[in-house]
Amino acid sequence: MADFNPVDPIIAKRDSEALPPDTIQQLVDAYTAGDVPDYQMSAFLMAAFLNGLDDEEAAALTDAMLHSGVVLDLSATGGTKVDKHSTGGVGDKVSLILAPIVASQGVPVPMISGRGLGHTGGTLDKLESIPGFRTDLSIDAYKAQVDDIGIVLIGQTEEMAPADRKLYALRDVTGTVESIPLIASSIMSKKLAEGIDALVLDVKCGRGAFMKTEEDARALAETLVAIGTEHDTSTTALMTDMSVPLGRAVGNWPEVDESIQCLRGEMDDSDLMQVTYALAGEMLHLGGEADTPEAGRTQARRAVASGQALEMLRTLVEAQDGDVGVVDDPSTRPDSEPAATVEAPDEATGYVADLDALAVGRLAVDLGAGRRTMEDDIDLAAGITFEKKPGEAIAPGEPLAHLYTQRTDRIDDFRTQLIDAYAFSDTPPAERTVLLDRYTPDGWDEW
Amino acid sequence: MADFNPVDPIIAKRDSEALPPDTIQQLVDAYTAGDVPDYQMSAFLMAAFLNGLDDEEAAALTDAMLHSGVVLDLSATGGTKVDKHSTGGVGDKVSLILAPIVASQGVPVPMISGRGLGHTGGTLDKLESIPGFRTDLSIDAYKAQVDDIGIVLIGQTEEMAPADRKLYALRDVTGTVESIPLIASSIMSKKLAEGIDALVLDVKCGRGAFMKTEEDARALAETLVAIGTEHDTSTTALMTDMSVPLGRAVGNWPEVDESIQCLRGEMDDSDLMQVTYALAGEMLHLGGEADTPEAGRTQARRAVASGQALEMLRTLVEAQDGDVGVVDDPSTRPDSEPAATVEAPDEATGYVADLDALAVGRLAVDLGAGRRTMEDDIDLAAGITFEKKPGEAIAPGEPLAHLYTQRTDRIDDFRTQLIDAYAFSDTPPAERTVLLDRYTPDGWDEW
Repeated sequence: MADFNPVDPIIAKRDSEALPPDTIQQLVDAYTAGDVPDYQMSAFLMAAFLNGLDDEEAAALTDAMLHSGVVLDLSATGGTKVDKHSTGGVGDKVSLILAPIVASQGVPVPMISGRGLGHTGGTLDKLESIPGFRTDLSIDAYKAQVDDIGIVLIGQTEEMAPADRKLYALRDVTGTVESIPLIASSIMSKKLAEGIDALVLDVKCGRGAFMKTEEDARALAETLVAIGTEHDTSTTALMTDMSVPLGRAVGNWPEVDESIQCLRGEMDDSDLMQVTYALAGEMLHLGGEADTPEAGRTQARRAVASGQALEMLRTLVEAQDGDVGVVDDPSTRPDSEPAATVEAPDEATGYVADLDALAVGRLAVDLGAGRRTMEDDIDLAAGITFEKKPGEAIAPGEPLAHLYTQRTDRIDDFRTQLIDAYAFSDTPPAERTVLLDRYTPDGWDEW
Repeated sequence: MADFNPVDPIIAKRDSEALPPDTIQQLVDAYTAGDVPDYQMSAFLMAAFLNGLDDEEAAALTDAMLHSGVVLDLSATGGTKVDKHSTGGVGDKVSLILAPIVASQGVPVPMISGRGLGHTGGTLDKLESIPGFRTDLSIDAYKAQVDDIGIVLIGQTEEMAPADRKLYALRDVTGTVESIPLIASSIMSKKLAEGIDALVLDVKCGRGAFMKTEEDARALAETLVAIGTEHDTSTTALMTDMSVPLGRAVGNWPEVDESIQCLRGEMDDSDLMQVTYALAGEMLHLGGEADTPEAGRTQARRAVASGQALEMLRTLVEAQDGDVGVVDDPSTRPDSEPAATVEAPDEATGYVADLDALAVGRLAVDLGAGRRTMEDDIDLAAGITFEKKPGEAIAPGEPLAHLYTQRTDRIDDFRTQLIDAYAFSDTPPAERTVLLDRYTPDGWDEW
């Protein structure tokens, strides 16, 4: 390292050169060790933001961040370990439903999740709305549990990908967050540290997602799959719509409640289960339990219909010290009464034409369900449940949604926000396409 | 400042937006005060490097840096105070000749200069090769001297443009040096702090300059003049060739020696005096002592021919405690014997076709005349004097140049470097154009 001068890669990236993997490794290693100061790394990040990183560079960055900490070895557990990652959306409780479905079919699911930030929720917060549920297992306990019951859901530990944490904190304060290769490297460094053999990505697209356009979502999907492939991890990406909240609940406990309904087979025709089954089909296929993704989808439906998936959720909750009683009867959880029901306004004659996922996500934060900064406390019971979604008939005075919040002094403001998130029309809107596209190392497939 | 979030201007510049002057002022003020950390400023600088700053933004940045420290007020001194700034070259001792010429004609020249770095020399180091010469005058002494004798040459003081110093140090380690608006703002913030009324810029162009291409040199000239104009300072830029070293000496004392020869009228036909007289003409014109730059040039020639300019150098050296004896007889300065004379090689039959200014500048650093980093010590006597320059006839064995150095163990290497800097040809090369173009607020003039 004696000859390494961090100004050289900064200048090279500034001048749009592609950096060799060794150079990226040196830069990240030196930064993680504290030998490269923040001010040089932030200049590099801005140059990378503006001039891009190609797939090889993104893979090298991922690799450097991945190996900055512990990389778990789950080889002692048999089977093909498969995880899913979502780029984040509103009402995205898919992991809570998907992981039990897939694990119930014999594919081990070791899942390390994050917390919510801004208008998007996080699986970790949702799980913690189950009384007693622990997400802070040690690495040994994580390994033992996936070996024992084939499913585990925890939060990221300090030991894993510390370089990603340090770099993400720097990106957050230097205007370098929204870069596709930087986002992709950050995601993949954390996921590849889990010890998985395969990965399915749910790349959200639309106003409620980080990627607002199909073009950006496609680019992110391609970069993520390229990095996975470079790391010998079978990776498939589904691009799914996030213009409208997924399912009928937004908020931590409300989404767990809805997930339990889904696992009971009560919402099989929803947009939420369309996405869940599509991802489950891919995971079961990559996990070697289904010959094709389509066959995996059928198997996933059977896992729900048979009750196997719900039973796997009970097993998971029990293993991580959660209250199984709320799984069996969600109404027993405290604070599950709405603070208000919002009714359709006078102009709502005909159909719900639209429901803005971003506006809903922001309202959920206002209700107390989300964080503006990582330090904020959240109200696990806060959120929204929808009576009406786009395409459904509506008349003035009919219930649109229920609001759950302790901030009852602001309820009039919340009602207005909710009504503003809706659009109405006299005729039914065009049917929404939820599953957009599918990307594998072989290229794009349309659905 | 309560609402100022530095991430906002970083993101705006990242997204190629033009920033309002107030925002730039806030950013620079907060950075200078230590309220914005280096890692945010370096991200901003990289975004500005890659997406540019328009003239208004560059003027605002200049203004913010200028007013971060003391701005001298020379209004007590009568006359129009005029200074010159060169963007730096090899053998560029113009200030040493020019300032006495102009001051001798009644135009006050308050000049604050820098030290050499890399392959380009600095006026301050050259002056200090005159035994005893002091460049560290206080601001009060600076003011008193310009008022008293109409000329003063010192180094930048800590009180002036501290934001520029802090920003320049950051740019140096974050790959953000070679940006035209950042370079222009840095130059102009220091020059405008001197208390001048008008400024002439010598924008060097070619392999020995920072601006290698005419396109870049033109852009820099335009930005410099735009900033001067925004600050109500009459500003003219000359674009001059820096592909070949200026004059026949490179190194600190060798260049002072040559400057004295020039002021004695012994080098009136050289490229060096062509540039010097052109700049002097502009300064005398802006200073109100000549109706046109052409008339100023004629007046400058007379100032040399009459001995007035040389007398002004003696006055300057005396005022700043330098040894006037070496001005009267340069050979009395110690260490002025060459360590070696380099002779033309066998293939040198015909003409000197070329002499690479960059290679010469690098050789001068190796000889001990320059610094690689600001901390390096320099040998004030080290350098090169040329017997032959491009266009002159040459035969094998004739002296090409003399080397001055204490590093005599490396003399063979230095000989090789020097010969490699030359090119020879059988026929005379095309005549070199030294004065390229002239830019004023009215636009470009060709010479």
